[in-house]
Amino acid sequence: MRILILGGDGYLGWPTAMHLTAYGHEVVVVDNYLRRRLCREENIDLLFDVPELPERTAIWQSLSGHKIQVYIGDLVEWDFIAEVFEKFIPEAIVHYAEQPAAPYSMLNRQAATLTLNNNLSVTVNVIFAVREFCPDAHIVKLGTMGEYGTPNVDIEEGWLEVKHKGRRHKFLYPRQASSLYHTTKIMDTDLLWFYVRTWGLRATDLMQGPVYGLFTDENEKHEQLLPFFNYDEIFGTVLNRFVVQAVGGYPLTVYGKGGQTRGYLNIKDTLNCIRLSVDNPADKGELRIFNQFTETFSVNDLAEKVREAGNQLGLKVEIQHVANPRIEAEEHYYHPRHTALLDLGLAPHYLSEGVLVEMMEYVIKYKDQIKHDQIYRKVKWA
Amino acid sequence: MRILILGGDGYLGWPTAMHLTAYGHEVVVVDNYLRRRLCREENIDLLFDVPELPERTAIWQSLSGHKIQVYIGDLVEWDFIAEVFEKFIPEAIVHYAEQPAAPYSMLNRQAATLTLNNNLSVTVNVIFAVREFCPDAHIVKLGTMGEYGTPNVDIEEGWLEVKHKGRRHKFLYPRQASSLYHTTKIMDTDLLWFYVRTWGLRATDLMQGPVYGLFTDENEKHEQLLPFFNYDEIFGTVLNRFVVQAVGGYPLTVYGKGGQTRGYLNIKDTLNCIRLSVDNPADKGELRIFNQFTETFSVNDLAEKVREAGNQLGLKVEIQHVANPRIEAEEHYYHPRHTALLDLGLAPHYLSEGVLVEMMEYVIKYKDQIKHDQIYRKVKWA
Repeated sequence: MRILILGGDGYLGWPTAMHLTAYGHEVVVVDNYLRRRLCREENIDLLFDVPELPERTAIWQSLSGHKIQVYIGDLVEWDFIAEVFEKFIPEAIVHYAEQPAAPYSMLNRQAATLTLNNNLSVTVNVIFAVREFCPDAHIVKLGTMGEYGTPNVDIEEGWLEVKHKGRRHKFLYPRQASSLYHTTKIMDTDLLWFYVRTWGLRATDLMQGPVYGLFTDENEKHEQLLPFFNYDEIFGTVLNRFVVQAVGGYPLTVYGKGGQTRGYLNIKDTLNCIRLSVDNPADKGELRIFNQFTETFSVNDLAEKVREAGNQLGLKVEIQHVANPRIEAEEHYYHPRHTALLDLGLAPHYLSEGVLVEMMEYVIKYKDQIKHDQIYRKVKWA
Repeated sequence: MRILILGGDGYLGWPTAMHLTAYGHEVVVVDNYLRRRLCREENIDLLFDVPELPERTAIWQSLSGHKIQVYIGDLVEWDFIAEVFEKFIPEAIVHYAEQPAAPYSMLNRQAATLTLNNNLSVTVNVIFAVREFCPDAHIVKLGTMGEYGTPNVDIEEGWLEVKHKGRRHKFLYPRQASSLYHTTKIMDTDLLWFYVRTWGLRATDLMQGPVYGLFTDENEKHEQLLPFFNYDEIFGTVLNRFVVQAVGGYPLTVYGKGGQTRGYLNIKDTLNCIRLSVDNPADKGELRIFNQFTETFSVNDLAEKVREAGNQLGLKVEIQHVANPRIEAEEHYYHPRHTALLDLGLAPHYLSEGVLVEMMEYVIKYKDQIKHDQIYRKVKWA
């Protein structure tokens, strides 16, 4: 299948590109290196350098034989996105091309505006490009479990049948997020759903939880093929960051009570979820929503698991509860359904001590490059 | 009270400005004449010319003694909005500054993008300006009943208590709109609600139905103080347009079966609703949602009423069912609650034959200027 990956330079975009070519798909990646630019602007270093896309694709091709075509440009620009769609005529579009960090979106007005404008402008352009160039193509958009927030009732997969005053209606599950970034994802979903039902497009919205991990079947720990890996508090997801903090001798910073519970998944499962979604497209006029995670943990659970794994390697890992810079419930009900991807055949890679130890052993190679002042960035919600 | 009216040149913005000064408030209006520009670009004529804001405010001042200060500029530009807020330090902000037409938003990609970018960028700038310059001020944002769509259950005022699998949660009422414009209003509400609860702002979101009418207590049919009045299918609201069509001898164009039911209100009631909202501000950290309409009608009801009123004036009014250019339910359940504004003291001006006859008598003055090719504009949803 011809698959276009938007945001192909990112933590998930690049591993997805390799994975889909390994499964025989023809892949084109697009990126404008926005994440790299924002990291430079915010003085954020990575744990290890990651080559730019032309170099990575060349390495991947030399190792695997699979070619990935690269377009560098801004998908907010219609002329650019139109050119990419017109030349490639994708059958599926995997849309990662968003500013993906909650703390970044809460930094200041400029960051909020960039997040809002970038995320919605790219999404609307993708919708119009599909309509114009490949109306039968399947849009696989990354959403986030954060759209749902933490309601006091069970979270279903995308839709909720409501009984009210003796009548019934099936609504998009009502969503309330706890950052501007997550709020833009709610908007994305509403935007996509409007055009899907108006124009009969096909779409899958993947409500993903925080992802962790470095290794995939394709990168095999080849350093130049590893994903873009942040360990700072702005762009680093919590478990990845805790692993680096443990190795770097920086206490695991648990916000507030640490009872914040979310659904997590291994990066390998993200790739499998994307592939399963692409291989089983939504119907025309259908917005199909999957909750994409494999198990739930509180932040306290994660910190404890990282400490235990660290102990296996002789690391002395401290856990420190710090004042919560976010505005969020620190103890709450959390019971999200996540059966649709399992029904499609997902075989989860659960979080084990072995998984954490394997990550730590790799991160230890870079122990001396871990900078403490990169980690805690003091982004406050209020 | 110091009240800033954003979008002060529009159909509702200008009447609101006069009304609030007549009630003793200090008013500043802001507009970038976007609606005028879009009308020019789409070759849309008004029934009668409306002076620009400096001239209108001068006329109003000479007649009433009330001064209204004018800023012309684009609220998407932070430097401009910051200057306005910093100089005036409003106590309330009435936010009408959006591209308000569903058909315009469905014209083409450029119009969709303009609607999305303008509406959300202005709203986010208003939020940041309030936070920076007047965090205690009350944001009164115009929403739309169209955010709710036409669910098969009763529509409550903004919030819905859901019972699900034995547990309960109060959600923002789940919304699903039937145009891109209305979808941007859903997004606006989500955006405002996020920052209201994160930063403790005060906000009222007025879910307004389609407004009709020309006359307010302040304009007293003084032509140069009348509102910006569209009778085309793009910017004209349905009842206003039907009145002009009846006078102009153009059949009343009912889309499809005509069972589309909405909540309507007289322009006088819009002004009263705004004043009541401003005079009774929301609490800090509260997003208060009112459903702003006074009675519900189907399109068939409206067409019948206009025909009957036309008959009173000896007009022969035809009703013509045309293929529906929109994608919407033409027959549906519709039972929206609207008690909060009545509880605050709203005394509705209901739609009567007298109201329609009074409008028609005025429109007849311009009968020769009604251009048939201005009315039906063939904007198709699909």
